[in-house]
Amino acid sequence: MELYTYYRSTSSYRVRIALALKGLAYQALPVNLLQGEQRGAGYRAVNPQGRVPALRSDGGEVLVQSPAIIEYLEEVYPQPALLPVNAERRAKVRGVAAIIGCDIHPLHNVSVLNRLRQAGQDEGQVNAWIAHWISQGLAAVEQLIGDEGFCFGDTPGLADVYLIPQLYAAERFAVDLGGYPRIQRVAALAAAHPAFAQAHPARQPDTPAQ
Amino acid sequence: MELYTYYRSTSSYRVRIALALKGLAYQALPVNLLQGEQRGAGYRAVNPQGRVPALRSDGGEVLVQSPAIIEYLEEVYPQPALLPVNAERRAKVRGVAAIIGCDIHPLHNVSVLNRLRQAGQDEGQVNAWIAHWISQGLAAVEQLIGDEGFCFGDTPGLADVYLIPQLYAAERFAVDLGGYPRIQRVAALAAAHPAFAQAHPARQPDTPAQ
Repeated sequence: MELYTYYRSTSSYRVRIALALKGLAYQALPVNLLQGEQRGAGYRAVNPQGRVPALRSDGGEVLVQSPAIIEYLEEVYPQPALLPVNAERRAKVRGVAAIIGCDIHPLHNVSVLNRLRQAGQDEGQVNAWIAHWISQGLAAVEQLIGDEGFCFGDTPGLADVYLIPQLYAAERFAVDLGGYPRIQRVAALAAAHPAFAQAHPARQPDTPAQ
Repeated sequence: MELYTYYRSTSSYRVRIALALKGLAYQALPVNLLQGEQRGAGYRAVNPQGRVPALRSDGGEVLVQSPAIIEYLEEVYPQPALLPVNAERRAKVRGVAAIIGCDIHPLHNVSVLNRLRQAGQDEGQVNAWIAHWISQGLAAVEQLIGDEGFCFGDTPGLADVYLIPQLYAAERFAVDLGGYPRIQRVAALAAAHPAFAQAHPARQPDTPAQ
């Protein structure tokens, strides 16, 4: 498999965690978002939406959108499982992933922040916007995840795949995470887990030297 | 099953379509978003995030977030299927759903628009914001769906479940849909399909008389 990725992209980071948890090898194909490579004709021919990540499967198909890519990995490479067996429990795990994937991250991705700036919002307003959506979303996540272990149990799963990159973004934007003890517990477990370390933005082929 | 819903909510509309396509009966429990019921203690006890939809399963579990609810319905009530069998095709269908569910709809839901207004954006700026994200997202969808039938084939599926409510929102916001002939073809097919009619905002128990 080949993964079009950018080291600091939250949604690329999710896919990297899923790949690492499943022990899947892949070729990283970095797309430099700072230089606008995602908008170039070359990458648009890969992904018409011009966003990362995109996964080229072993069958040669290009798959886009991290939620779709991660469900694909779960279906084709089922072990270790990122979702529980019971359908209602699966829905609860996917519900937390969707809060992060739909109601937090889309509101602070770089294209949205640039649009706010174009609309005349200053950096203070942009930072308040980011903090609002991250805080509101994480408050819901805090109430929906479990009391011990990772988000839902002893082993990392889909909710953790979404949560850890979201926390990385929260820290980049200096959002206070003090009010979320369950989330902090999960973050500490992930920090000690080799798959999360392997997927971290600090350790990618396109991570800047400084 | 019981569905906490609001007639005009895009994500409630998605779940209603999925239920109707599968021929599943449910009790609608309207939550009046205009009156702020979703923020009240009563509804927060159901869904800590304070958003619709939420589904109470026959087992009594409350499931939140439309992507998670729809995957649950697909798993527990697999026929008629909303996803194809082949894993890569499933990923392509889910990819289109995720473009709508992550990169379009979250940017124009009512809480986001209100936040823009609070940040000093006038109605012209808010409308330009809405049109920008809907147009950009639909342009990608237009390139990723098929040349005939519904989004991916002769029968409606997950991508259609997401697309039709998004088009309803686009029309409410007066976004020009002229540039998307494939999408318009899908819209025409859905308009003639009884499940989409049954789920439409104009036909819900909480639809205002006028």
